[in-house]
Amino acid sequence: MNHHQSFQYRDVGYDVPAAVGMDEADIQTPCLVVDLDALERNVAKMRNLAAEMGVRHRVHGKMHKSADVAHYQIAHGDACGICCQKVSEAEAFARAGVTDILVSNQVRDPAKIDRLARLPKLGARAICCVDDIENVAGLSAATQRHGTEIECLVEIDCGAGRCGVTTTPEVVAIAKAIDAAPGLTFSGLQAYQGAMQHLDSYEDRKAKIDIAVAMVRDAVDALKEEGLACDIVGGGGTGSYYFEGNSGVYNELQCGSYAFMDADYGRILDKDGNRIDQGEWENALFILTSVMSHAKADKAICDAGLKAQSVDSGLPVIFGRDDVEYVKCSDEHGVIADPDGLLKVNDKLRLVPGHCDPTCNVHDWYVGVRNGKVETVWPITARGKAY
Amino acid sequence: MNHHQSFQYRDVGYDVPAAVGMDEADIQTPCLVVDLDALERNVAKMRNLAAEMGVRHRVHGKMHKSADVAHYQIAHGDACGICCQKVSEAEAFARAGVTDILVSNQVRDPAKIDRLARLPKLGARAICCVDDIENVAGLSAATQRHGTEIECLVEIDCGAGRCGVTTTPEVVAIAKAIDAAPGLTFSGLQAYQGAMQHLDSYEDRKAKIDIAVAMVRDAVDALKEEGLACDIVGGGGTGSYYFEGNSGVYNELQCGSYAFMDADYGRILDKDGNRIDQGEWENALFILTSVMSHAKADKAICDAGLKAQSVDSGLPVIFGRDDVEYVKCSDEHGVIADPDGLLKVNDKLRLVPGHCDPTCNVHDWYVGVRNGKVETVWPITARGKAY
Repeated sequence: MNHHQSFQYRDVGYDVPAAVGMDEADIQTPCLVVDLDALERNVAKMRNLAAEMGVRHRVHGKMHKSADVAHYQIAHGDACGICCQKVSEAEAFARAGVTDILVSNQVRDPAKIDRLARLPKLGARAICCVDDIENVAGLSAATQRHGTEIECLVEIDCGAGRCGVTTTPEVVAIAKAIDAAPGLTFSGLQAYQGAMQHLDSYEDRKAKIDIAVAMVRDAVDALKEEGLACDIVGGGGTGSYYFEGNSGVYNELQCGSYAFMDADYGRILDKDGNRIDQGEWENALFILTSVMSHAKADKAICDAGLKAQSVDSGLPVIFGRDDVEYVKCSDEHGVIADPDGLLKVNDKLRLVPGHCDPTCNVHDWYVGVRNGKVETVWPITARGKAY
Repeated sequence: MNHHQSFQYRDVGYDVPAAVGMDEADIQTPCLVVDLDALERNVAKMRNLAAEMGVRHRVHGKMHKSADVAHYQIAHGDACGICCQKVSEAEAFARAGVTDILVSNQVRDPAKIDRLARLPKLGARAICCVDDIENVAGLSAATQRHGTEIECLVEIDCGAGRCGVTTTPEVVAIAKAIDAAPGLTFSGLQAYQGAMQHLDSYEDRKAKIDIAVAMVRDAVDALKEEGLACDIVGGGGTGSYYFEGNSGVYNELQCGSYAFMDADYGRILDKDGNRIDQGEWENALFILTSVMSHAKADKAICDAGLKAQSVDSGLPVIFGRDDVEYVKCSDEHGVIADPDGLLKVNDKLRLVPGHCDPTCNVHDWYVGVRNGKVETVWPITARGKAY
């Protein structure tokens, strides 16, 4: 995990927040810190869970956007490959040696379709989603131009309310069009229920996935009647993977956040009513921040604001502390209520981000720490790859 | 404004969203687009307003983080220099040739103090804020190590509730300590009222600034009695600059958002009760997005989600359209209510971001457009420079 040691020769505090071998206390803040022990335990746990359920795990690279993390998940988590959401992300992962990539999204712009069709030339299996029969001809034509192949999943909107078709006849019509198109292979279904992942109650989440499973089963059966087999039936996130994994219909999970965790996911409850960050998964990702002003006795100001995180799903939580609270976020500052005046300038705190995905996308580096030392500094390979 | 034309040879759609000379229709989305005509009019207008009020304008570089925009504001907006919030930002601007830089923030970490003291070696005047007498010795020692000079402003918390002291005796004590410290120069006061900038009502904003002006005047007078003159009395943002500029006490404005505008600022009202984006300032910054799914008749899905913007201050607004509305934002998708089914896949829309500063910080490039063509592609020089 140390092939990026050369980064220690960059300018710490300008190009990178830390150097390999540095004490954790010397890391420049704000930055993202990964607890490597916790990450490794999360990856191993999900590997075992997927194996027990007898399904593959295609880890979601859009969460961390890091080739290093993806390679670790593939090697040590038995992941079959990755998902990502953008063609430019897929290119970044392929260039970094990831060889099995699902763009779990629609690709419609002609320039992006052309790039997707060239992805196999970077050495990667290229899979994308389709929710419109009008998309098929363009995808097929691009593969013909480049002499490549694209595998296509028909996307079902099973409750997320974004992309995807909602009826089995639509699924079948698109699948048949894909199957008939030169250069394209019909490979199955994409059915990720994103909207329910963050419902607190296990039973509420189960009810939503029951609906999704019924839709997917109906589509799989109808496709079978047409002689179309689903090599991939993909979906499932950190809040639902056990439902899809045990459904008997899904065969590929697509979890992202389990590896790092965040405050918003942490709050949801497992079937016994326990928060999932209290046993099921460990917080492995933190925003390391420093107190840089304490001019008012009951209020500390830290250096991690909106440019070090996304607060779309709530404010960050200060890890391991209930005596101080992050209460307000502005561009470059966080306000920490410190009623007992416990914090001092230059004290460092670990923040659990509200939402890991868009927080990771703000940063250029993960600082991997173990036993108080910086063990690795990983570039966030696909950061900003939104095209 | 075209010294970055070489970027057209990078890989459009992977490294950059556009190439110089390209039609606007071919820009890869999502990305940030700058209407160069609107930007130039905003900059010229603020230049004239500051001149009429007889104050300097130190433009806020933390908003755009772009050396190209800063150089334009200095050359064509008569800006005296820039503000930024982080030492790593200051370094990025100094390395790009900006020579007068105020870090309008506290610098407390020893490594950051050391870097700040080296900023003059990059050719820049280095100014920072101080709100704690304990900070003075470290700043002074660093200048002695490097044979440089740092100018210091005492920061007054005049209502924002973040950094800064709140009483004149504290201001005077810190100012005297700065004045006595080798390598440091006491240069005045920082008094930016950030919390009121977004109050809708002109009168509410004025009431808050009246309090700030009284605090600042009291401090300036007390310092004068101690023989300490304020070369800089800085503050003022896009929602308040006329108050500070006409106060007779402030002499440097620090506006950022006026140049680009955003939806949250756009909603505040001028003294006649008109939105400030309806005459006072023009929207010059947009997130260009494409429709990439329309599987449901009344709902279009676009490609700009949380990784293309910050929604801390609300959702983006679709520019020039009241027949469709951006209603929901997830990681990579935006949901657009399209009740009349007006949008088609690959239609492009301009979104006015909810909050420009943290939105700019997500992107690597500004695509400057004029008359439907890409005229320039500017790197976001200090993107991610949060240390």
